[in-house]
Amino acid sequence: MAKLSLLEQETIFIMNEKEKNATIFTYNRAYQKKLEELCKNYPNKVIYEKENNDGAVTYTLPKKWLKITPPRQPSEKRKQILEKMRERKN
Amino acid sequence: MAKLSLLEQETIFIMNEKEKNATIFTYNRAYQKKLEELCKNYPNKVIYEKENNDGAVTYTLPKKWLKITPPRQPSEKRKQILEKMRERKN
Repeated sequence: MAKLSLLEQETIFIMNEKEKNATIFTYNRAYQKKLEELCKNYPNKVIYEKENNDGAVTYTLPKKWLKITPPRQPSEKRKQILEKMRERKN
Repeated sequence: MAKLSLLEQETIFIMNEKEKNATIFTYNRAYQKKLEELCKNYPNKVIYEKENNDGAVTYTLPKKWLKITPPRQPSEKRKQILEKMRERKN
């Protein structure tokens, strides 16, 4: 089978309003590693479903484990600390 | 248009290895609210794409904002504190 382009190597999370689990299909190595580890640590929650023949894997896991998290904004106190550190350097 | 069943009301995150953004299509009200807020706070990062005519919305956002996070395990110290609180109650 021809190697897939980077654009074709997709990661898809899919869930619905009825079921508690999400299905994850991914070519991404980092996700694959993470899912493999979660599967070992939470064998009742994270289920290995299948591997296709060109490098993608499919798992199911609780959909509430999926989060959208923007990068952390430093707090006011943290900003002051960073400011002081900069001053000390100069 | 007939109302979709809970099973048909899907949420789909899709991304690939080439592009930095993920596309999110969702009927889920909580995700819709969260995305609307993120869109206000990060207008350069979270882009409203479209709304279909039966209640789903589509956004794009940086794919690295999507995280798989299992529920937090209490630390040993936290476990001891919880244990003490229980003892005090009895």
